[in-house]
Amino acid sequence: MPFVTSHMSISLDGFVAGPDQSEDNPIGVDGIKLHRWHLNDPKHPIDEAFTQRLLGPRGAYIMGRNMFGPVRGEWGNSDWRGWWGPEPPYHAPVFVLTHHPHDAIEMEGGTVFNFVDSFDAALAAATKAAGDRPIDVAGGASAVRQAFRAGCLNELVLDIIPVVLGSGERMFDSVSDLNAEPVEVATSPLATHIVYRIN
Amino acid sequence: MPFVTSHMSISLDGFVAGPDQSEDNPIGVDGIKLHRWHLNDPKHPIDEAFTQRLLGPRGAYIMGRNMFGPVRGEWGNSDWRGWWGPEPPYHAPVFVLTHHPHDAIEMEGGTVFNFVDSFDAALAAATKAAGDRPIDVAGGASAVRQAFRAGCLNELVLDIIPVVLGSGERMFDSVSDLNAEPVEVATSPLATHIVYRIN
Repeated sequence: MPFVTSHMSISLDGFVAGPDQSEDNPIGVDGIKLHRWHLNDPKHPIDEAFTQRLLGPRGAYIMGRNMFGPVRGEWGNSDWRGWWGPEPPYHAPVFVLTHHPHDAIEMEGGTVFNFVDSFDAALAAATKAAGDRPIDVAGGASAVRQAFRAGCLNELVLDIIPVVLGSGERMFDSVSDLNAEPVEVATSPLATHIVYRIN
Repeated sequence: MPFVTSHMSISLDGFVAGPDQSEDNPIGVDGIKLHRWHLNDPKHPIDEAFTQRLLGPRGAYIMGRNMFGPVRGEWGNSDWRGWWGPEPPYHAPVFVLTHHPHDAIEMEGGTVFNFVDSFDAALAAATKAAGDRPIDVAGGASAVRQAFRAGCLNELVLDIIPVVLGSGERMFDSVSDLNAEPVEVATSPLATHIVYRIN
């Protein structure tokens, strides 16, 4: 099996997205507050190092449908191609979890969005595609919870953001039997980065 | 004003105590999992350093009633004197928040439990008692939330424990406008300690 990792930014009260996600607010109201550490220019050197880690080369990605886009239910005539413009930052196959069939979408720079109907199918396809490079479970909360349930995660990197969102999407709801050990930590004023080894 | 600090151990899903607190389970079911880092013997050197910080000399403490003991409602004939035996680890005045009057209790080693009926009254009395030494808001979650609302906290130390409790008492519920900056961080396998300056 390839090494499976996930990297999520989370508020002090446990949210990885704000409420009311929409096309205008892809990570929900105030969700952007969780991502200033890697959107700032210039970045703090610690944040720069963890941004590089987040963007590090992967063999494949697994992503929830809500992270791919705002379309819900049937795809219909939607020509949605992701939030990231013509050349997404993935440069590898991305397996999007959806019960609604969709043809693969080939983007510039090596990113190909593939649509699969279960986490297990995504993991199998990602494993085949990744070779000996890592697989990244890119989010959102539900995809990471499915990775916990599948018992496939080797590493979780959390960026703990010193904000309280109050509502939104909690990451650890219904996760049980977590066996995690912090092995590395560093902080900037905007985020405390913790690397967990998952056993 | 004296420097006001608080030091809390919190699960990855945001709980500082488990559910069903009782005399047998003072910090709720599985709540003990949040405190292994400072109960272990021997302790990891990082955990030892933060234990010393937790036990550091204070001029006064503020504590919620549920942290003082399991008695609810009227005190009646209760002779409860805290969880900590004849010589509690505080060695200073402790102001316990309760709407039910109770005479002060003098313990060995300089700890005196005083009972006051509001956070503001506790803060005023603690300020008077502390002189130029720090005041510690010892917990639980409700007392710390009241400290946030009063705007009196200068520092919050969180021990992030790599466990998921699933239910219990959440610390940040209804806290808004948190303006916190991480200024120091260190980790052991059992806990990641983050020192926040509160602005």
